[in-house]
Amino acid sequence: MRVCVIGAGAIGSLLAAHLASVADVSVLTRREDHARALNEHGLKVSGRHDFTARVTAAATAAELPEFDLGIIATKATGVARAAAALVGRFPGATIMTVQNGLGAEELVRAHGDWPLVSAVTFMSGTKHSDTHVEYILDTPTWLGPYGGSSYERVREIAELIVEGGLHAEALPDLRPAQWSKLIFNATVNGVSALTGLPHDGHFATEAEPSDLGHLVHALVDEGKHVAAAAGVELYDDPWEMNVLATQRGSAHYPSMFEDVGARRPTEVELINGALVREAARCNVDAPLHTAIYRLVAAREASYS
Amino acid sequence: MRVCVIGAGAIGSLLAAHLASVADVSVLTRREDHARALNEHGLKVSGRHDFTARVTAAATAAELPEFDLGIIATKATGVARAAAALVGRFPGATIMTVQNGLGAEELVRAHGDWPLVSAVTFMSGTKHSDTHVEYILDTPTWLGPYGGSSYERVREIAELIVEGGLHAEALPDLRPAQWSKLIFNATVNGVSALTGLPHDGHFATEAEPSDLGHLVHALVDEGKHVAAAAGVELYDDPWEMNVLATQRGSAHYPSMFEDVGARRPTEVELINGALVREAARCNVDAPLHTAIYRLVAAREASYS
Repeated sequence: MRVCVIGAGAIGSLLAAHLASVADVSVLTRREDHARALNEHGLKVSGRHDFTARVTAAATAAELPEFDLGIIATKATGVARAAAALVGRFPGATIMTVQNGLGAEELVRAHGDWPLVSAVTFMSGTKHSDTHVEYILDTPTWLGPYGGSSYERVREIAELIVEGGLHAEALPDLRPAQWSKLIFNATVNGVSALTGLPHDGHFATEAEPSDLGHLVHALVDEGKHVAAAAGVELYDDPWEMNVLATQRGSAHYPSMFEDVGARRPTEVELINGALVREAARCNVDAPLHTAIYRLVAAREASYS
Repeated sequence: MRVCVIGAGAIGSLLAAHLASVADVSVLTRREDHARALNEHGLKVSGRHDFTARVTAAATAAELPEFDLGIIATKATGVARAAAALVGRFPGATIMTVQNGLGAEELVRAHGDWPLVSAVTFMSGTKHSDTHVEYILDTPTWLGPYGGSSYERVREIAELIVEGGLHAEALPDLRPAQWSKLIFNATVNGVSALTGLPHDGHFATEAEPSDLGHLVHALVDEGKHVAAAAGVELYDDPWEMNVLATQRGSAHYPSMFEDVGARRPTEVELINGALVREAARCNVDAPLHTAIYRLVAAREASYS
């Protein structure tokens, strides 16, 4: 299979490097010098795996070879721009999105009629340079059909990712997994961004009245209430995901925490904003998630 | 009258300097070098007023001259320590508290049976050095009796402060004013600390669903609901206080914003914590204030 990974942050780099062992992989970067570095030096993976992959990189879609699968691996804030770059090209390709939150698929659909595959990923990595990514958490990527696309195709893609050395699972309906992660992310990313705490034991502590675990639990319960109203049965319980994650030993630094620390735009619209809009669509109250949404949006407003 | 100001931050310095023109003023500082600097150079006021006052300063209560009125002007977090320093001394003195939040009077009462006066202040200043404070907002200080103390005494003290050149008003019952400020402070300080925004126009903007004004309004409404349950009729509407304050032109930097910026302990327990505990005592829900309380407490936990 010929695969193109669009966006070479931590997740895109991990996918590109691993898939390069079982497919022809091209990479679309935003910066010319990033593409040049990848073409010259390849893409090094350290951490849980240790190898250097050869990839073909370009900074414009016109320079890309044809591909069968395009994986948009930008942050949620970059999906519209990435999809716009593909307009009118690669008619035979399936496009897969792997962003946090909800709504990435609709953003791609607005730019073309490629068959779409939805995915959410729990793996994590740290990008040390344009050509070096550290593979940190080897948790899975889940994939499902979107808008009537073929489940057979989803299974092929999941198998390819597994052959490449990562964990992946095809699901006939991704929404239960996507919503589990949505509720988890809206809660953990939002609270981490506002408090300056990494995702650590504070998030699961419910001893004193002032303890953060009470708020995290209430946010999860509110999110589950929205999911139920939306007719989604969750795949994993987000509270259990939270407790398990905080017991892993080393604290995780959520992307929204990193974003506000660096005064960058966050994914708040596609994560917290999406959850709040779903609540409104289903006529359920979500006062706590709405509060977190407005606080993070205001935190972004404080940059300027 | 002989007055002792305990704690020479911005509010304590403004009170001490102004009262020195109409009373014998001593100042109790935490640091020896602060007391020495005040004794040597006096206390300079700039901004709305411009003069230098002579004060007698000491860093231990044993060195203080007798006084008739002690004003504890520390932050809420410093009241217990300040009251402990006075234990067994100054039996003829009235002690006045002027902290944000609720509960300062009880902390003083636990250390002695002095007659007590409650106050809240809306004036503000910036301390430029140990011997220089800028007088910024000339809004009033409100005073009321506490625990059966004499209203006549409260009026004398208010008159003295006015003679000294500041704005003050005696009220037979301070609770309506104290609660107006409590709700205002719990909302504005908490949101400012979490978002990194000064108290500016964002706090009163309610145009888009993500706008912060919606959250501020909901917090104020929730606080008013708690006040009603506690049987307190508010003196000023905290939402109007918020709107007016954001229209003053220059944005104000709330103390909790400054505290988290400098990674200092905040007044969250005596402000947000007090409001949340009052809600529990009155059996009303305050989910949004409880969320803000836990988020700010977690922000403090992130320092270590």
